[in-house]
Amino acid sequence: MYDYQAPLRDYRFLLEEVFGADRLWDELANLYGVTPELAQTVLEQAARIASGELRPLNMRGDQQGCEWDDGAVRTPDGFPAAFQALGEGGWLGIAGNPDFGGQGLPKMLTVLVEEMFYSANTSLFLYATLTAGAAYCIDSHGSAAMKRLYLPKLYDGSWAGAMVLTEPHAGTDLGLLRTKAVQGRDGHYQITGTKIYISGGEHDLAENIIHLVLARLPDSPPGSKGLSLFLVPKFLPDSDGKLGARNAMHSQSLEHKMGIRGSATSVMAYEGATGFLVGKPNQGLAAMFTMMNYERLSVGIQGLGLSAGAYQGAAHYAAERRQGRSPEGAVAPDEAADPILVHPDVRRMLLYQRAHNDGGRAFAMLVGRELDKVRYSDDAAEREQAARFVGLLTPVAKAFLTDRGFDCCVLAQQVYGGAGYIVETGVEQYVRDARIAQIYEGANGIQAMDLIGRKVLRDQGATLYEFLDVLAAEAERDLADSNHRGELSDALQLLREVATKVIKESDKDARLAGAIANDFLQLLALTTYASLWARMAVFAPKDPWGNAKRETAAFFFARILPQTRALAAGIEQGLAGMDYPDNYF
Amino acid sequence: MYDYQAPLRDYRFLLEEVFGADRLWDELANLYGVTPELAQTVLEQAARIASGELRPLNMRGDQQGCEWDDGAVRTPDGFPAAFQALGEGGWLGIAGNPDFGGQGLPKMLTVLVEEMFYSANTSLFLYATLTAGAAYCIDSHGSAAMKRLYLPKLYDGSWAGAMVLTEPHAGTDLGLLRTKAVQGRDGHYQITGTKIYISGGEHDLAENIIHLVLARLPDSPPGSKGLSLFLVPKFLPDSDGKLGARNAMHSQSLEHKMGIRGSATSVMAYEGATGFLVGKPNQGLAAMFTMMNYERLSVGIQGLGLSAGAYQGAAHYAAERRQGRSPEGAVAPDEAADPILVHPDVRRMLLYQRAHNDGGRAFAMLVGRELDKVRYSDDAAEREQAARFVGLLTPVAKAFLTDRGFDCCVLAQQVYGGAGYIVETGVEQYVRDARIAQIYEGANGIQAMDLIGRKVLRDQGATLYEFLDVLAAEAERDLADSNHRGELSDALQLLREVATKVIKESDKDARLAGAIANDFLQLLALTTYASLWARMAVFAPKDPWGNAKRETAAFFFARILPQTRALAAGIEQGLAGMDYPDNYF
Repeated sequence: MYDYQAPLRDYRFLLEEVFGADRLWDELANLYGVTPELAQTVLEQAARIASGELRPLNMRGDQQGCEWDDGAVRTPDGFPAAFQALGEGGWLGIAGNPDFGGQGLPKMLTVLVEEMFYSANTSLFLYATLTAGAAYCIDSHGSAAMKRLYLPKLYDGSWAGAMVLTEPHAGTDLGLLRTKAVQGRDGHYQITGTKIYISGGEHDLAENIIHLVLARLPDSPPGSKGLSLFLVPKFLPDSDGKLGARNAMHSQSLEHKMGIRGSATSVMAYEGATGFLVGKPNQGLAAMFTMMNYERLSVGIQGLGLSAGAYQGAAHYAAERRQGRSPEGAVAPDEAADPILVHPDVRRMLLYQRAHNDGGRAFAMLVGRELDKVRYSDDAAEREQAARFVGLLTPVAKAFLTDRGFDCCVLAQQVYGGAGYIVETGVEQYVRDARIAQIYEGANGIQAMDLIGRKVLRDQGATLYEFLDVLAAEAERDLADSNHRGELSDALQLLREVATKVIKESDKDARLAGAIANDFLQLLALTTYASLWARMAVFAPKDPWGNAKRETAAFFFARILPQTRALAAGIEQGLAGMDYPDNYF
Repeated sequence: MYDYQAPLRDYRFLLEEVFGADRLWDELANLYGVTPELAQTVLEQAARIASGELRPLNMRGDQQGCEWDDGAVRTPDGFPAAFQALGEGGWLGIAGNPDFGGQGLPKMLTVLVEEMFYSANTSLFLYATLTAGAAYCIDSHGSAAMKRLYLPKLYDGSWAGAMVLTEPHAGTDLGLLRTKAVQGRDGHYQITGTKIYISGGEHDLAENIIHLVLARLPDSPPGSKGLSLFLVPKFLPDSDGKLGARNAMHSQSLEHKMGIRGSATSVMAYEGATGFLVGKPNQGLAAMFTMMNYERLSVGIQGLGLSAGAYQGAAHYAAERRQGRSPEGAVAPDEAADPILVHPDVRRMLLYQRAHNDGGRAFAMLVGRELDKVRYSDDAAEREQAARFVGLLTPVAKAFLTDRGFDCCVLAQQVYGGAGYIVETGVEQYVRDARIAQIYEGANGIQAMDLIGRKVLRDQGATLYEFLDVLAAEAERDLADSNHRGELSDALQLLREVATKVIKESDKDARLAGAIANDFLQLLALTTYASLWARMAVFAPKDPWGNAKRETAAFFFARILPQTRALAAGIEQGLAGMDYPDNYF
């Protein structure tokens, strides 16, 4: 097992050079007092916690797992103390509302903190993500009293959060949900139903757990327009936050999962549990989407964090493990063999990971930047555009960073050879943990459908074209010296052409959008990565560290970006195979 | 958990229509009495054993795992009886030498049997593969007495086999092996050393285990030219096969692995164990390669078998699970939702799997056909060419079928959504089991280096061009009616051009071959798949079953084959990124 070290130099380069945080944060009128110096302090502190507190519990969490005993759930040794440390350090409320004890730091910064914590211990940090997400949802949709009561406790880790949607017959299709909410004489609601796959639904990390539950009121319309959101606490607090009666809800069992075994996933039963309406009746799905969009970006960062964590071990192993000789002659003639890093195919695997990790990190920061504009800009037009860009890019961040993040964990494992398959080496846990990120919070196929359907076809490509214009303008402004300007320009043009064709053709056959959704998402992601890699190559310093960035950029443009041509060709024939007769699958 | 059903109709179609087994087997002068009817009987029997005997033990094998107790290894419940059933049914010797109790069936047929057994239970069938591989090695390199003594016992499962290469400091780089062999006064050898990752090194499936061990004689040259191969039995038999003394070798521990947990992987200690030289001194690596090449094809089929097995469950789930509605309007308006099979993105995932499973199966049969020519043809020129084609295609079969097999297991898991991450669903075991196939028997990067270095550059592309000529001639002869003839022809031409460039450029920079090895292997694989898919589309019957094949072919050509363009573009810039400074990885 190697020690995890946060890539602080990369973070600083991205914040200060690539994204110009200093000026950007100055320009955001409603963001106060955040400077690059503060950002460095925050990142350094987070790096210490990631390496010192979270990482040492990672493998133990996997091997020990969670234990269910008559409705109570015991998390792995050390998890409760580490969760409390996150709360006490202010990390749960890092992006939270300062009026209620949050830190109010910009998302472009906090995505990096998230990455570190996911790299170090995804299972543990998931409890934190759900807690921060629940707080964000309450802050966005809850009443003033609700905010006063719940936010400070969620931000400081006294209480934790959970997001409660899925039922056995209703996963992607939330319109099928059956859990009921009936209003009682006290004005509150009784929630009754069974929910599955509830991460953090029950555990021993905090004295209370705040469930945000989607349920159906008696007189609601059928389908997804009849869902309302309820806050259902494990223990019912009084108005001062003092805990009262245990609510009528419990964990029926824990799931046995491929990975994230330190994260307790419950089947939850609500048996007339007391709940409080969040927002308006029948608008629960929209309110829940606030939380889900927050989680979706975070799950994308989970894919990145796991990939970046796995990479470090693989790079370390490649420098230490000796087998064979360099094709250019021995580099360590006094040793029995050279480090495997000399083999071009090993370098290929590491470069592929770097290209995606650095590119994915920049992509997450780009989404963070747009989220910050939505929240902190005083320019309505800027806010409006940024909100649309967030809508466009969030499904891409979720799906592409987790798909390629998983692939990169697999490649990291491959670098180890046989040792990578052995549990004690640690990298196989990264592969198993990363796998869930492609599935939950909306499976990646759903993200792709969201992108092509809601974000591209619905406005006939207007937001997409606007986004491509911004990338082209940035290139015009900043990338005059770039080697990769021609390739970037071709990529932007290719995506524009493909999108135009898809928009035109999709009216003719209702199946087309779905058939090409996955490939279209990849095409958009790679094209955006091209823009980000061209920037990174230009802004990297003229020293060996900067040369490493430029070599990675060269690898990205030469060996990865050409995938866009294959994707474009496939999209053009998107209906091929769709007439396959059902009963021969 | 779904029931596994062997795809017998696909097998028959491939054997009789696509590969013309009837005529082919007639023409192989030294292959007696094998007819399509016999082949059907064999396949049907194997299908019953796969579903009835092996598959029910698959999940239990994973969950129970193997137990080590003071050097003894207990395999999961049911494994010993199932291994004995394989032996008694003649399945271990299915391709073995008839002079010693083998069945002598052609490889083009037995690859299908292997696929079924891997689909049903990879961990269990691995013991059988190693046993058959050890027998094959003894048959190829052992003395007459050795064959008489060992082959019948290996074929009938009384004894099992193991392949013993790796040491802690020597995996890929076998030249670093240190295990010693010293000749005693009786003419036999004492073997001393520690070996790791020894699949089937110790277990309770058979009364004896025959280890084939690479070791170094005292006066041997250093490196891989100083290795000799030794047969080291767990119990020393007399010349009648009666077991005598326990040999000085034992399992020191079992590895904890990501998957194939029913397969016992030992650290083996040899402490002056008695061994018998196989073949000549210092020619052990060549002898071992006989076994390794056999295993390499088999490991490719393992990737295919797992993928084909995982696919069946996913297709079944997609037909049963109801979420959402078809983009063309409800197909099951009386139900709350349509089967997810209606969603084009779900079809895309299933079609991707089918395209690779069917293509991979045909590819394995192609290698099998060439192996059969080597073994059973009486035409020396045909044998010579076939042997070179086997050399060319074996690393491709091993690497591509396992890489894409793994990807397809992951896609199968994705079809299940959240359920796919739950252990009890069963599909996550396929993902974990498939992962090892990319690593062992020569990691896939090593296969790619073998292909480009030994099989393409060494003869300046002669064998590759000859192989492409054969594919072109087959197309000329059989595919006049194919829709895909133009695409196939372009693909063959593209590969030829890329190979010519690589051959020309690789002299200029010693790193190029390694840098592009992986992409070149994929390019060769996809191009060969194009040939096989064009054949399958043309030969498929004009009925719904045949339409399914043609739709899959259409999907392959439209959505998968374009990857060759990206690969070709990347290969052309193969050195990009290779100057990345070492200490910044």
